[in-house]
Amino acid sequence: MIKAKLGIVGLATMGQNLALNVARHGIPVAVYNRTADRTAALMARVQGEPVFPASTLRDLVEATEPPRAILLMVQAGKPVDEVLDELFALLRPGDLVADGGNSHVEDTERRAKVAEARGLLYLGVGISGGEAGALHGPSIMVGGHEQGYRRVEAVFKAMAAQGPEGPCCGYFGPGSAGHYVKMVHNGVEYAIMQAIAESYDLLKRGLGRGPDHISSIFAQWNKKLGSYLLEISVDILRFRDGDTGQPLVELVKDTAEQKGTGKWSTQAALDLGAPTPSLAAAVFARIVSALRDERLQAEVVLPGPTPGLSVDPAQFIQDLEKAFGLALVVAYAQGFRQLQQAAAHRGWRLSLAEVARVWLAGCIIRTKLLRTMGDVFLREPGLPFLLLAEPFRAMWAEDQGALRRVVAWACTHGIPVPVLSSSLELVDAYRTGRLPANLIQAQRDCFGAHTYERLDRPGKFHTPWRTE
Amino acid sequence: MIKAKLGIVGLATMGQNLALNVARHGIPVAVYNRTADRTAALMARVQGEPVFPASTLRDLVEATEPPRAILLMVQAGKPVDEVLDELFALLRPGDLVADGGNSHVEDTERRAKVAEARGLLYLGVGISGGEAGALHGPSIMVGGHEQGYRRVEAVFKAMAAQGPEGPCCGYFGPGSAGHYVKMVHNGVEYAIMQAIAESYDLLKRGLGRGPDHISSIFAQWNKKLGSYLLEISVDILRFRDGDTGQPLVELVKDTAEQKGTGKWSTQAALDLGAPTPSLAAAVFARIVSALRDERLQAEVVLPGPTPGLSVDPAQFIQDLEKAFGLALVVAYAQGFRQLQQAAAHRGWRLSLAEVARVWLAGCIIRTKLLRTMGDVFLREPGLPFLLLAEPFRAMWAEDQGALRRVVAWACTHGIPVPVLSSSLELVDAYRTGRLPANLIQAQRDCFGAHTYERLDRPGKFHTPWRTE
Repeated sequence: MIKAKLGIVGLATMGQNLALNVARHGIPVAVYNRTADRTAALMARVQGEPVFPASTLRDLVEATEPPRAILLMVQAGKPVDEVLDELFALLRPGDLVADGGNSHVEDTERRAKVAEARGLLYLGVGISGGEAGALHGPSIMVGGHEQGYRRVEAVFKAMAAQGPEGPCCGYFGPGSAGHYVKMVHNGVEYAIMQAIAESYDLLKRGLGRGPDHISSIFAQWNKKLGSYLLEISVDILRFRDGDTGQPLVELVKDTAEQKGTGKWSTQAALDLGAPTPSLAAAVFARIVSALRDERLQAEVVLPGPTPGLSVDPAQFIQDLEKAFGLALVVAYAQGFRQLQQAAAHRGWRLSLAEVARVWLAGCIIRTKLLRTMGDVFLREPGLPFLLLAEPFRAMWAEDQGALRRVVAWACTHGIPVPVLSSSLELVDAYRTGRLPANLIQAQRDCFGAHTYERLDRPGKFHTPWRTE
Repeated sequence: MIKAKLGIVGLATMGQNLALNVARHGIPVAVYNRTADRTAALMARVQGEPVFPASTLRDLVEATEPPRAILLMVQAGKPVDEVLDELFALLRPGDLVADGGNSHVEDTERRAKVAEARGLLYLGVGISGGEAGALHGPSIMVGGHEQGYRRVEAVFKAMAAQGPEGPCCGYFGPGSAGHYVKMVHNGVEYAIMQAIAESYDLLKRGLGRGPDHISSIFAQWNKKLGSYLLEISVDILRFRDGDTGQPLVELVKDTAEQKGTGKWSTQAALDLGAPTPSLAAAVFARIVSALRDERLQAEVVLPGPTPGLSVDPAQFIQDLEKAFGLALVVAYAQGFRQLQQAAAHRGWRLSLAEVARVWLAGCIIRTKLLRTMGDVFLREPGLPFLLLAEPFRAMWAEDQGALRRVVAWACTHGIPVPVLSSSLELVDAYRTGRLPANLIQAQRDCFGAHTYERLDRPGKFHTPWRTE
């Protein structure tokens, strides 16, 4: 009997689609789900592909060719630990376990140690692409046991999106490196989604445009950007509700939910001291959106200007395109910067060019711009901030005026643009040689004797500021 | 021989000053430091006050009257655990340990459990006021064992700042409640310090004013605000360097450091889902300030407009006063909101009015406005956001236009104002009944089948957005 090359545990949408994806490449895959209904649902979708259903975890392990490779597609958190407890007891030294969920990086570090102590090879694998990506080819960010990765590399590359620069699958370092890259991917994703939402709001409330018109505008922008998130927004804005005939997006409740990865990305950035304010602003924007009942009350109590912009619409749309493009680049710039700091902190040899290459297709934050970004990092692997290199440097120079006008208009008219504005604030602070933080250091020295440094001489100083 | 009412471990500046403060109230205090030099330094400052130096931790314990009360003023982190290990072995059931440092709330939760398992009473105590506060009366935020607190309440109240509404010492709940209040205090502190720095920068680079003039402007504003941080800024800006005769603040290096509490505050807010974007922006502003070498390079590479504002100076200064005042209130509003959510989440019966009262004197973020804030929360203990109640509601209505003009000017002229602008962004989002988050939810449903809710009917929906 033929044994499977890969065992998959967990058959929710992502697990099912990955199993079909692998099997369609002629690679035999064994599958198991805790409840049988999902296994049955998957098997109903199989049309001759080599998918072997298992009814217990033990059966799954036995159906897989040793040394085994088992991919977990189980909900992050406790469920992963529960499956691992059971699975570790069934596996033999030399077997490989890959966690393909959005696990917290510290969980992955911990589990990798436990697995390796048992002689198992452990991978933490970030998989992006949503439902469609899982089926047709996701972006795969691998971390953990390097030799282990080499063993499954061919299967992962077959499963991955085939990008313009090869399969979108890459290895980024030991332990949690893969999950870290995926976490930052999601941080960037939050910022892009929020920047699109802000642009939509400015066109809707600021200029009075309807969803069809906004869809066309976004389609126009996307010729240059090739952004997946903008592309689906074009479709979403056009979609009509079957029941009411209305644009469906306008009937969707405005409370954005989150599953934690964007939040983790910001928390990790804070731990590193990595400057990611616009990624953080996107997380807070979702938090505020969730307070819908409060917002409806606050709307009555807290007045503001009318949102209608008193501008030339054509000029504004042109400015907004530039502002959005810049915010997009600044979002990636922050993500790459965070990865660079994380790699330095954890001793990973992580190539930002390879990250850009793996994000080029399959994943949620894919955009044509990533090709240029990859080129930049190939040329300058240690570049601390994307905007410092061409062509992004020229893009800043040309488009910053538009970003300033858009943010100033939005502020003036009371339309919230937290990601657009914090992108501008970040770059303005970053390009300021002399910030007013000298006053903060003096305050800290004044109330807490924390000392300060001087510009005109070396050393640490303390001054009795208030005894003069 | 008289025994001490309180033992203090750790005689850095804060510990020394607290020891003197207690002893000056006639309360006998035993003191110990790991290295003898600091004990000697303290004893050199003693002028007849009842301070008993101990040369070992055991001696300190023996010099303290049973049941003992020991206050740790040791650097947060590992040093606290090291002292506790040793101390727990020397104490008897019924003795009390209070950690007066800026410990991480999860550390305090863990240590409280260990202490209580040994029959000890444990307090996590946030102490704010810096050097001067420690000596003359700090603000004291207590959490932990409630009966334990009652036992040391009289000593703590004697030690505390005497505010207009009584001693600035309060109990906020079990476990880490006190350290949590102090952590949020520091989050608010970061935002206020940054808002002052932004105002200084706008007056300096935007209007070309020198430090003496800015000092006078701040002194003027502070008549109404009575803010300690603004008050010390008035003195700092006036201070002349003895060597060069220059305003010293202008010679201070513009890299603001941080010890972690502001960062923790933002990380904890994210865990709670509490909207604190301007407190987060202040943390990121310090992070960017620390990248001074990069900023000096970026200044050459990334162009921007000239910072000189083309405005009527008198009008601008008036607007900036209002903008700063609003940002200040929004900073407290976020802090109180975070405390409210933390209390709900952890089951603390925490009174925001009592927090405002305890912050009224002694602490770094004291301001006259806290009196009004306390009154608001006495009247409406469940108020979700400070701006919703008078007089802050009217303040928003009157001053929002000024805040908009200042942020728009700053954006237009390239002067970074991350806290002013994120304060405006937060309130604009909060007072928007219909945010564009519907598009985000539709995107999430489109790529991840995360489902969405509708405005016109109950239920969860999933739509094949792209198959039309």
